[in-house]
Amino acid sequence: MQTEFEIIEKFFFKKNIKAYKGIGDDAALFKKDDDNLWAISTDTLNKNIHFMAATDPYKIGWKAMAVNVSDILAMGASPMFALLAIAMPKANSDWLKQFSKGFFECCKEFNVELIGGDTTRGPLSINVTVLGDVNKNSVLLRSNAKIEDDLWVTGNLGLPALGLKIIKNKIEVPKSIAKNSIKALEKPMLNKFTIDKIKPFCNSAIDISDGFVADLSHILRASKVGAKVNLKDMPINKWIKKTGQEDLALYGGDDYQTILTASKNMRSKIEKLIQKNNLSLSRVGIITKDKKLRVNDNGIEIKLKKGFAHFEKK
Amino acid sequence: MQTEFEIIEKFFFKKNIKAYKGIGDDAALFKKDDDNLWAISTDTLNKNIHFMAATDPYKIGWKAMAVNVSDILAMGASPMFALLAIAMPKANSDWLKQFSKGFFECCKEFNVELIGGDTTRGPLSINVTVLGDVNKNSVLLRSNAKIEDDLWVTGNLGLPALGLKIIKNKIEVPKSIAKNSIKALEKPMLNKFTIDKIKPFCNSAIDISDGFVADLSHILRASKVGAKVNLKDMPINKWIKKTGQEDLALYGGDDYQTILTASKNMRSKIEKLIQKNNLSLSRVGIITKDKKLRVNDNGIEIKLKKGFAHFEKK
Repeated sequence: MQTEFEIIEKFFFKKNIKAYKGIGDDAALFKKDDDNLWAISTDTLNKNIHFMAATDPYKIGWKAMAVNVSDILAMGASPMFALLAIAMPKANSDWLKQFSKGFFECCKEFNVELIGGDTTRGPLSINVTVLGDVNKNSVLLRSNAKIEDDLWVTGNLGLPALGLKIIKNKIEVPKSIAKNSIKALEKPMLNKFTIDKIKPFCNSAIDISDGFVADLSHILRASKVGAKVNLKDMPINKWIKKTGQEDLALYGGDDYQTILTASKNMRSKIEKLIQKNNLSLSRVGIITKDKKLRVNDNGIEIKLKKGFAHFEKK
Repeated sequence: MQTEFEIIEKFFFKKNIKAYKGIGDDAALFKKDDDNLWAISTDTLNKNIHFMAATDPYKIGWKAMAVNVSDILAMGASPMFALLAIAMPKANSDWLKQFSKGFFECCKEFNVELIGGDTTRGPLSINVTVLGDVNKNSVLLRSNAKIEDDLWVTGNLGLPALGLKIIKNKIEVPKSIAKNSIKALEKPMLNKFTIDKIKPFCNSAIDISDGFVADLSHILRASKVGAKVNLKDMPINKWIKKTGQEDLALYGGDDYQTILTASKNMRSKIEKLIQKNNLSLSRVGIITKDKKLRVNDNGIEIKLKKGFAHFEKK
């Protein structure tokens, strides 16, 4: 199958005239008023692809909202409204009750109001659209990373990818690790507080849904820059590190953490904020002029998986 | 299966605080600026439910956009932006090429700009969200029909329901009727020009997706009124009338025409507009204080199908 990006580019990428920013970032942007923009994003979760049939519907409800909020946060915006389109084979009240509980708890957590939707018959699928607003001077575009920017990442990476392996019975792990991994996969918590605190000092951002390396690559390509990442600085779960499974944090998807870049002149300000507010934020590397992504482990360069290393415009 | 309305009401109906109007109309409304509102609507088309596997992808593309534009028009709004979320089992370039052709032709027809979306793996399903804007004094709510308003309906009813019967091999009809019916089902044309001309003189509107009687009932319930409809005035295809299949026009879905109500003081103005612009618009009845929907055929009241006749709030 072609990648999502290739499909979009080939058939649906058109120049926008009325919008501020169309396809190609975590959310599209259009004018709100003289000072602000609306950010809008849509994401679908399908049964057996994005969640298993047996997944707790409460968690599906939470996640369907959370993955969209994550996109809005990665634009530097504050989520406000949502629409929900559900397709299901038949109306199952017990399932819907739990689903809506998770969905609305996530709405409450991030101050989102459900204003519309659609219910149809079909294989189970949940599509959510979220709108948020952002001051146009504070918007965080993928294309705005600057050479020598520090690379920051929120939270902790790798657990959701481990959770997926556990669910698919591909690995056996200690009980507590298994529990946390599956929870991280099924109920992503996001780091709105951290992002809100540091976004005034940042140049660009993206949320990690396809994996750290893949999503960082989107920033690098859009900004026409490269990056050097220090694996030892990456916020990876100790057990994952100890067992040499750092690939889960580099290439695993579904983290819903956020990569941000900020001028190194902002470093001390950000470090003070981290300390003052006990933020979950790690400085993991630097943006480079050389349009490559390099990951070093104690000074030794890791060979990245094919397709992730070069960003020259073909 | 519970109806869409029951599901929505039970689990997803919450009081809105930040929005101007939430769930319960063709589109949700939120503030654009001091004078205008944003209208936003989302609709999903699923394979084997809303279209057949063999349906021309060009027409699926057109329809996926058109059904949402129809919702926006029924609010009195002008469509502007769209998001497209497609789920498909695998990327099929030929299919996508035709689909995107239909989709973008419909965008062009109604001046809509695609600004974002999502592509996922899953059973074929197309979800579109459309945003439009409307002056807050001109917005057409379901809840604003007034007693003694004239009932108007755009275009022609019944052909899409006939088309569906033909596709399902449930009926044999003359070739030209079959062709027109299937076309009406698969490529709804909407009557934007007519709606735009008369909307300044109207009080309320709804688009006909579930069928004339069902959708008129939504207006009546929301406005706490009833209606008298004259079957002989309904814009029904001659062949459908001749063969006594008026039910297709009363209960058949997928018409994507629009019911509007307007004060009878506006009647002469609207009639002049019809004549001057050759509008496709019929006056089919009147809004009544008595909270019932009555349909008369040459003065004889037709017994409506169960569930369609009473609108008292339980």
